[in-house]
Amino acid sequence: MRVVGLGPGPARWLTPEAAEALDAATDLVGYGPYVDRVPARPGLTRHATDNRVEIDRARHALELASAGRSVAVVSGGDPGVFAMAAALFEAVEAGPAVWRALDIEVHPGISAMQAAAARLGAPLGHDFCAISLSDNLKPWELVLRRLTAAATGDFVIALYNPASKARPDRIFQAFDHLRTLKDPATPVAFARAVGRPDERIRIAALGSADPGLADMATLVMIGSSETRLIDRPGRDPWIYTPRQAGGAR
Amino acid sequence: MRVVGLGPGPARWLTPEAAEALDAATDLVGYGPYVDRVPARPGLTRHATDNRVEIDRARHALELASAGRSVAVVSGGDPGVFAMAAALFEAVEAGPAVWRALDIEVHPGISAMQAAAARLGAPLGHDFCAISLSDNLKPWELVLRRLTAAATGDFVIALYNPASKARPDRIFQAFDHLRTLKDPATPVAFARAVGRPDERIRIAALGSADPGLADMATLVMIGSSETRLIDRPGRDPWIYTPRQAGGAR
Repeated sequence: MRVVGLGPGPARWLTPEAAEALDAATDLVGYGPYVDRVPARPGLTRHATDNRVEIDRARHALELASAGRSVAVVSGGDPGVFAMAAALFEAVEAGPAVWRALDIEVHPGISAMQAAAARLGAPLGHDFCAISLSDNLKPWELVLRRLTAAATGDFVIALYNPASKARPDRIFQAFDHLRTLKDPATPVAFARAVGRPDERIRIAALGSADPGLADMATLVMIGSSETRLIDRPGRDPWIYTPRQAGGAR
Repeated sequence: MRVVGLGPGPARWLTPEAAEALDAATDLVGYGPYVDRVPARPGLTRHATDNRVEIDRARHALELASAGRSVAVVSGGDPGVFAMAAALFEAVEAGPAVWRALDIEVHPGISAMQAAAARLGAPLGHDFCAISLSDNLKPWELVLRRLTAAATGDFVIALYNPASKARPDRIFQAFDHLRTLKDPATPVAFARAVGRPDERIRIAALGSADPGLADMATLVMIGSSETRLIDRPGRDPWIYTPRQAGGAR
């Protein structure tokens, strides 16, 4: 079976390997909107599920694969980054021994932070962290500990899952916390749905940014102390983080 | 001009967008081995340079673009992750004002940590950091500070540029440091040249791993406290980091 990264959305970011895996599958398993990205065709059964049941979805995919089906588990972005691959291996670990004998191939994809970075300039040009603000699978205290560590280490920070309908306030709490640790002039970007028709980019400074700009489709990028803006005529500035750091210039 | 990510090597990981950018270019600028990956064709001028002159290479590309050429700056992996995009924007910032009016598009690519993660299982399934051990552009003290922060925050750690001919000992020093901060049983993987003919994967525990397994083509992955192995018959174990953490299971 194959765990396939669809990338952020547009076909121009879908790797040939992922495209081939979708073509070869007899069964697609995934969250509805991702399954919907793959065109229907004869011989392809589509198993679309609700977003909240990742582990059940993983088990279902493993059962289909054990029964001899050619299964593609689809994921937005990179399945290895806050997506289906970890859920799948959780299911394997807890499941019957035969699942460990399956061929499971993970096909990487362009993740949201990469699409955002490409659009913004080069904010991930130097050491960075990726943190999910979702706290339905970890205590909020751990999120705060990681934000503290990311600020202490002066990493660029890419925040995934900054807000959800159930927890719209998490990104506000994260900004409140980071404002106690970082320079208010630190560049921040809200990169929403990059590469899709409803793409929207907003650039601000940490001290005055409105965290309410982040929704479920937004990747929030927060600079290190070295991250800077390059103004340009008539357009948003570029944001980049130099390769040099800590006075080594 | 376009800054193009070639991915880790194989064509199956080159995005259609990147392939199109290479097809449309009149001039390719990049480090020799990356330029060499793009087949010669009539109308394409290839400007291969030594690896040590990234900023000169960036300026050269900007001069060509200003003169009206269709320039593709090529980079292995993702140009936004420890690669050419940051060097390019450094050159723009320090260069003539006309460079700020250029159209500069960055095309993301699969980065080494993603290829390594896909091969290993799902080690990046939860919060992680990416750190370059190269210290020719930052003081070693900053690397140590970031390793400390990454351990304190209990991030999975992806180490880029773990060793070079000039500094073969950096990865040894990094491991010595991490061993004072993390459980010796922490899973570690040395993922060398993933996707290329000379690919080699080695899995170990932090306490007993040989850092000498890392060379310039190696991505070193170091687990969080939650990262675990799944044994399987006759093959390397899978490595994955569960989505749950900190007792939220």
